[in-house]
Amino acid sequence: TADQAEIRALIDRWHAASAAGDTAAVLALMTDDARFLLPGRAPMTKGEFARLMTPAPGVVPPTISVTQDIHDIEISSDLACLWSALQVSITPTGGAAPMLRAVTLTVFRRVNGRWLLARDANLLVPKTG
Amino acid sequence: TADQAEIRALIDRWHAASAAGDTAAVLALMTDDARFLLPGRAPMTKGEFARLMTPAPGVVPPTISVTQDIHDIEISSDLACLWSALQVSITPTGGAAPMLRAVTLTVFRRVNGRWLLARDANLLVPKTG
Repeated sequence: TADQAEIRALIDRWHAASAAGDTAAVLALMTDDARFLLPGRAPMTKGEFARLMTPAPGVVPPTISVTQDIHDIEISSDLACLWSALQVSITPTGGAAPMLRAVTLTVFRRVNGRWLLARDANLLVPKTG
Repeated sequence: TADQAEIRALIDRWHAASAAGDTAAVLALMTDDARFLLPGRAPMTKGEFARLMTPAPGVVPPTISVTQDIHDIEISSDLACLWSALQVSITPTGGAAPMLRAVTLTVFRRVNGRWLLARDANLLVPKTG
């Protein structure tokens, strides 16, 4: 459907902007009240996300490579729910490249006719086997 | 709203049925294609959930005490998204009672006019501090 295609395009733009270090472009893809649920800490706000994406001056950010396999997207009116599998490789400058994998549950909200990420739960763990 | 009240009632029934070991009652509160996203493993199906809830013959199941604080419930037509904080205490027979805590992201689907749990991501970790 058109809505599913729009949400897939959002995800593609998200990964491209993240890889390019374009924080503003990523922030434009989420609602202002977006929350990222992570294990062992309070949900992350949009402001915290923005600070985390902005490297400190003089610090070379790690190279992060992400593959996201979308399992399904369910849509009803102005909410959508997506379930996916992530493979993440984080390469620190000069360092090794640990592989992580995760399942994620993401909720999108249609705001003024445009889909935006609103809630995301990311169950990232080191890859074994 | 009435939908939010119905979803809160579902959660209350879920906890009561779980505490009573009433597997059939819990299974009636979820869709047949329900999936439970957990770290480090493939999402759990309804069938696996049922087997996990059914103790082996002669085995005394642990006492599980759950407190769930609902942070928000967002509803649009036939999908709803809930974000909550869980505190879980699991007491094995004769054992200590480790405390766990989690944030959860849960998606409900309205099926024939009735809300059912459809997707749940549970970021359960040992409680520290």
